[in-house]
Amino acid sequence: MTDRRFMRRAIELATAGIGSVSPNPAVGAVLVREGRIIGEGYHREYGGPHAETDCIRDAQVRGEDPQGAVMYCTLEPCSFRSPTKHNPPCTEKVMEAGITRMIIAARDPNPAVAGCGVQALRAAGIQTCCGLMEEQVLKLNESYFLSTALRRPQVHLKWAQSLNGRIAHAGGGKTPISGPEALRHSHGLRATVDAILVGRGTVELDDPGLTARYGATPLKQPLRVVLDPSLRTPISSQLFQDKAADTLVFSGALNDDALNHAAELKQLGVELVQLPVQDAGGFNVSDILDALYERGVRSVLVEGGAVTHTAFLAAGLWDRLTVYIGPTMLEGKVIAPDAPGYANVVVEHEVDVLGDTVALTSMNPNTRQVLNGLKWDTAPQPQKAGCTLPQEEPHVHRLST
Amino acid sequence: MTDRRFMRRAIELATAGIGSVSPNPAVGAVLVREGRIIGEGYHREYGGPHAETDCIRDAQVRGEDPQGAVMYCTLEPCSFRSPTKHNPPCTEKVMEAGITRMIIAARDPNPAVAGCGVQALRAAGIQTCCGLMEEQVLKLNESYFLSTALRRPQVHLKWAQSLNGRIAHAGGGKTPISGPEALRHSHGLRATVDAILVGRGTVELDDPGLTARYGATPLKQPLRVVLDPSLRTPISSQLFQDKAADTLVFSGALNDDALNHAAELKQLGVELVQLPVQDAGGFNVSDILDALYERGVRSVLVEGGAVTHTAFLAAGLWDRLTVYIGPTMLEGKVIAPDAPGYANVVVEHEVDVLGDTVALTSMNPNTRQVLNGLKWDTAPQPQKAGCTLPQEEPHVHRLST
Repeated sequence: MTDRRFMRRAIELATAGIGSVSPNPAVGAVLVREGRIIGEGYHREYGGPHAETDCIRDAQVRGEDPQGAVMYCTLEPCSFRSPTKHNPPCTEKVMEAGITRMIIAARDPNPAVAGCGVQALRAAGIQTCCGLMEEQVLKLNESYFLSTALRRPQVHLKWAQSLNGRIAHAGGGKTPISGPEALRHSHGLRATVDAILVGRGTVELDDPGLTARYGATPLKQPLRVVLDPSLRTPISSQLFQDKAADTLVFSGALNDDALNHAAELKQLGVELVQLPVQDAGGFNVSDILDALYERGVRSVLVEGGAVTHTAFLAAGLWDRLTVYIGPTMLEGKVIAPDAPGYANVVVEHEVDVLGDTVALTSMNPNTRQVLNGLKWDTAPQPQKAGCTLPQEEPHVHRLST
Repeated sequence: MTDRRFMRRAIELATAGIGSVSPNPAVGAVLVREGRIIGEGYHREYGGPHAETDCIRDAQVRGEDPQGAVMYCTLEPCSFRSPTKHNPPCTEKVMEAGITRMIIAARDPNPAVAGCGVQALRAAGIQTCCGLMEEQVLKLNESYFLSTALRRPQVHLKWAQSLNGRIAHAGGGKTPISGPEALRHSHGLRATVDAILVGRGTVELDDPGLTARYGATPLKQPLRVVLDPSLRTPISSQLFQDKAADTLVFSGALNDDALNHAAELKQLGVELVQLPVQDAGGFNVSDILDALYERGVRSVLVEGGAVTHTAFLAAGLWDRLTVYIGPTMLEGKVIAPDAPGYANVVVEHEVDVLGDTVALTSMNPNTRQVLNGLKWDTAPQPQKAGCTLPQEEPHVHRLST
């Protein structure tokens, strides 16, 4: 179980980078000699050193020599140079440090790595084992893995409903459904994403701040995104006025009224992006995701309302769904989002009991398939010329741990 | 903590009677001498000996003498005789056995007891302490306490819904929503009630058996109750044909067509009871509950459909609600029951994680108030002539345990 213990520590270290490293993945590394940790590191923020470098540097600061040590790393080390990349290849750093054995959890799906990191290490004579606690690392960096594989942001849908499936009281207005512990949980979700998206109706009805608060303060607040085809969300809305985070509005083509509205929004520092409007009056969900991805967004939390959620569900463009169920009964027809075309079973139905509220988090079965396809055992061999993964080394699921 | 340990054992013994003793409560008793259990007993089935008698008899069978022992009993001993009662007063049995101390959990709300049992014991010089683990016993016998206080059956509403609050697929027909562990849980609920009630629509759509199965086999299957104002549930329905349990149909006044239908049902052994039909076409929920109470039903599990659930919710005539939430997404408008007039918070929101399904069980806040009013500290003093509860004895919440 020693290998698992060190990898668990590397994952723990990686976790500290969540919320600061996107669009990079959160990565942790641990250097071990004779069963003793001699260095620890992680990727702290986008643009900063990678985990492997941070870890080797930590060992040196401690006066330890990485020569002949074993490195546990949550992700396959990078093996390429590029003009837009801040760091030299980590494979070289590992070689220079004289590390003789690498234990790697997950394969880097970035096409510039994708098995070539391991190939480079093995070519340099470093014993390299892959796959230990792979599943945990896939989960930790789900948005990185999915957005890299799908070339769109990871989509996490989230809503709160009463015991009888109502998301607001018939009378309208803000309806408190879930309790304070659920509030902290949902702000925790916000703190891990690059963007939070809502429809115009939700801004008008709830006037939300859409920032991560209640103890969940990320290094940088997520981008706030509003879907507003006819560009008429009130200028007085909190998220346009409070400067608490960047704000982006997707609108359709601007008519004369909308041009004034747009000028006022720009004056307030709100970014406007125009997208084609469908016959039904809304955007194409994949247009939204394409625009966000292009802008660097790798994960988006969709907070409603029901029309917006239903659009994402209908398009099949979602990965996770969190439903908060509060201890309330509500009257009326303001019901949870419809799921056109669904009669299916979601997967990985996690349950969090949050005081008097329950959070159910599920995964889209298609997303599970995508993630499974990124594992060492199923992912394709490296495609880059000169990079073919040797098969003689055992994968870690066959390692005696 | 010794007192709690013995009372816990008495509660454990009581539990074995659930499903066999209604309309009586489930009661357990333990006899203790010098910290050692010398006798155990419980009320095994309706008409059989009470827990106190069973416990004293057990001590005697073991060759132990109850003289000078302490009895832990989950419910206040009965203290009255009546022509319809099978047992002599337990207070007399306790006195005859020479028991010198009684620890009692809950007060018996039966107006013929209601504090008089304790008064009789104290008058006989038996040291009597009340209230230890009272809450647990109220919960164990919730249907007895509520039906005695309210003179109607305890009402437990139950349904299963998808993550997005749909109770069936739009296409109709049986929709599997919850998994096998939830199925066992719901059959466990069935096994503890006197009756299971559904609307005609549910019989027509699902053709359910409405018996307690999957390991939860009660001594006697609950009465099956169908609400059918116009008496047109198909004769071929499973619950009319299978003889697996008694079946009762509530109908309105019978027209000529219905007379034939009624004759066929009677032929099959189905009981028919006529109730007034409201302008909206359904029954008055309190008429249903009155008729069931009169028939000896002390607890009823309402299994749907949505129209029936909504009628009980609208009338405020419900005590518990269990919602099963399965790991599915469903399309359409077959949504969870509406809750007319509700914008409120339920209480005691218990969460059971049953494999991939979650069961949320709540209590009506009014029901909580009724139960609280039955406790030693809040219940009224005995009203019977010659029976006033002496106040010199400390309640057990002041007992040094």
